[in-house]
Amino acid sequence: VQQYELAVLPGDGIGNEVMPEALRVLDVVGAKYGVRFGYRHFDWSCETYKSTGSMMPADGLARLRDHDAILLGAVGWPGVPDHISLWGLLLPIRREFDQYVNLRPVRLLPGVTPPVRDKKPGDIDFWVVRENTEGEYSQLGGRQGEGTPTEMVLQTAAFTRRGTDRIMRYAFELARQLGKPHVTSATKSNGIYHSMPYWDERFAAIAAEYPEVTVDQDHIDILCARFVMSPERFDVVVASNLFGDILSDLGPGVTGTIGVAPSGNINPERTYPSTFEPVHGSAPDIAGRGIANPIGQIWSAAMMLDHLGLAEAGADVVGAIERVLADSSAPRTPDLGGKATTEELGKAIARAV
Amino acid sequence: VQQYELAVLPGDGIGNEVMPEALRVLDVVGAKYGVRFGYRHFDWSCETYKSTGSMMPADGLARLRDHDAILLGAVGWPGVPDHISLWGLLLPIRREFDQYVNLRPVRLLPGVTPPVRDKKPGDIDFWVVRENTEGEYSQLGGRQGEGTPTEMVLQTAAFTRRGTDRIMRYAFELARQLGKPHVTSATKSNGIYHSMPYWDERFAAIAAEYPEVTVDQDHIDILCARFVMSPERFDVVVASNLFGDILSDLGPGVTGTIGVAPSGNINPERTYPSTFEPVHGSAPDIAGRGIANPIGQIWSAAMMLDHLGLAEAGADVVGAIERVLADSSAPRTPDLGGKATTEELGKAIARAV
Ligand SMILES: CC(C)[C@H](C(=O)O)[C@@H](O)C(=O)O
Ligand SMILES: CC(C)[C@H](C(=O)O)[C@@H](O)C(=O)O
Repeated sequence: VQQYELAVLPGDGIGNEVMPEALRVLDVVGAKYGVRFGYRHFDWSCETYKSTGSMMPADGLARLRDHDAILLGAVGWPGVPDHISLWGLLLPIRREFDQYVNLRPVRLLPGVTPPVRDKKPGDIDFWVVRENTEGEYSQLGGRQGEGTPTEMVLQTAAFTRRGTDRIMRYAFELARQLGKPHVTSATKSNGIYHSMPYWDERFAAIAAEYPEVTVDQDHIDILCARFVMSPERFDVVVASNLFGDILSDLGPGVTGTIGVAPSGNINPERTYPSTFEPVHGSAPDIAGRGIANPIGQIWSAAMMLDHLGLAEAGADVVGAIERVLADSSAPRTPDLGGKATTEELGKAIARAV
Repeated sequence: VQQYELAVLPGDGIGNEVMPEALRVLDVVGAKYGVRFGYRHFDWSCETYKSTGSMMPADGLARLRDHDAILLGAVGWPGVPDHISLWGLLLPIRREFDQYVNLRPVRLLPGVTPPVRDKKPGDIDFWVVRENTEGEYSQLGGRQGEGTPTEMVLQTAAFTRRGTDRIMRYAFELARQLGKPHVTSATKSNGIYHSMPYWDERFAAIAAEYPEVTVDQDHIDILCARFVMSPERFDVVVASNLFGDILSDLGPGVTGTIGVAPSGNINPERTYPSTFEPVHGSAPDIAGRGIANPIGQIWSAAMMLDHLGLAEAGADVVGAIERVLADSSAPRTPDLGGKATTEELGKAIARAV
């Protein structure tokens, strides 16, 4: 049988509680499709930082590299400043492994009541394609006049032709592949003077390569409003690192799926492993109680299956999630209005597979 | 009688249609409160750009300066790139007149059906306080390797101590004055390495000056999601230029008021005139048909009254807007589901005053 070697990083907080459920489902779906998953566990987290001063060992990235994919839980914990935990683990993985696509579905699921009215499952179903390696997330910049009244901080975003073009091409290819021939670009070229007009310029250039795909673009301010007012109009939305970050949280906010949304940090060329992680964080408020919703982690594993070429298995897991959510007698964690534990919901999904 | 001299810039598209209704209401409310408004009209717009190559004359700002306030319609028109129209008129006004506060209400109004469910007027009622002169909207940066595969664009945001502190103090003062003792800061210090940790640092410092005001902060991604999921939790939200731009469109998106939301670009020291303008744009799709909703412009005029020290008159106009919206037999423009013209709705509000 085909064996896949996975690096498993539960990270902090509820990451440790939801990860076992994803592995449970992977084992079941693997058995069903005749493939095997090997797991190598890495306990790198804010705990690691507290005891060693780094989020991961010096050779951390090298140790991850020889895996078919990385499954990540959640990174971040009170007491460790976010920019330390993230720039010490999550962001280096995204960048060193050239995971330049951050892919997130926005989908209205059965059994989930969204905050928006008059929408039913099927109405909202699109993808946010976020640039994941450059742009506004940048360590370029610094501070002058520290501690004085004239103190000033500069923060520089970098947009390269290579980085911009490849994320846009990915979005167009995805649209074509999904048979959803419409791509929306998130911009802000009316306010942000250099980078966003450039973004628009490249969007027009890449769009010209895909004449069968229709396009439009919205400034990020009105685009966010449209995510709420008319989410059904989107198919594929392509955005810079920051704008994509915003849109891929806002989208699941609109569909009521923020606690269950998955994401893929993808290196499409497969030169490096890709990382799959839920959109939710480590949730210090509920961590340790065994009541976190494991669907985001399980759905992330489904996206990983897709990426590994096991599309049927991936669709099977998503189908199982949907069936369990739609079944009002199935276990539900407190965020879904029930009393079930993480494990009970995980087992129910494993059974449904 | 006290006379106020106003600079009136209708700008482009529907700006020209909604502005007369605001002036109509100002005349009525002025008569009621015994004050007079003088209007000096400036037709600077994208038309000006097409015929002269600039959005306003070289001495444009000097000509605006000696007014008590500026009423602006909407700027921007197809064929003139946004970054030209805006950096040629709107943004220089904001900056040269040190209008460092962009203030926008997010309010669920009677008679308006919002896209979110289970909310009623009164549930959602808060202010977005946006920094309006620096930050991410910046002309710092440029392009290297133009037209080559290694092309790269840098875009630098600048955050000064002065600029950061004063917008935060304004937010805390507003919270105190409104008796809404809670301020939320929009940040992204987990991803944006220099500017946003600095933003957090200053927020903590200024918050310490207002011990009676409670605070929290959210990263912009989850904050946007929370605007949809739990908009009732906000009182005053303080944000950088870009984040404030996003939030102050998203908020009205959530309350279904994007077409009617107002904004003030305020110089709190009153060294320079402040500008009041609707959040909506020039709406090329409906311009010229006399069906645009004038409420955003009228409500902006109400915010101006407030700024001029005519708080009672301002509240009177807002009350008139609310009564007309709540009255199902009153005229409604097509965006509100009716067939009324801009003028009919404007007159109804003037009558209600
Ligand atoms: C037109 C544009 C530059 C402007 C902005 O982003 O500031 C507008 O969106 C606004 O919010 O007033
Ligand atoms: C934790 C944070 C740095 C991260 C991001 O903004 O990229 C998260 O919000 C996400 O979207 O994966």
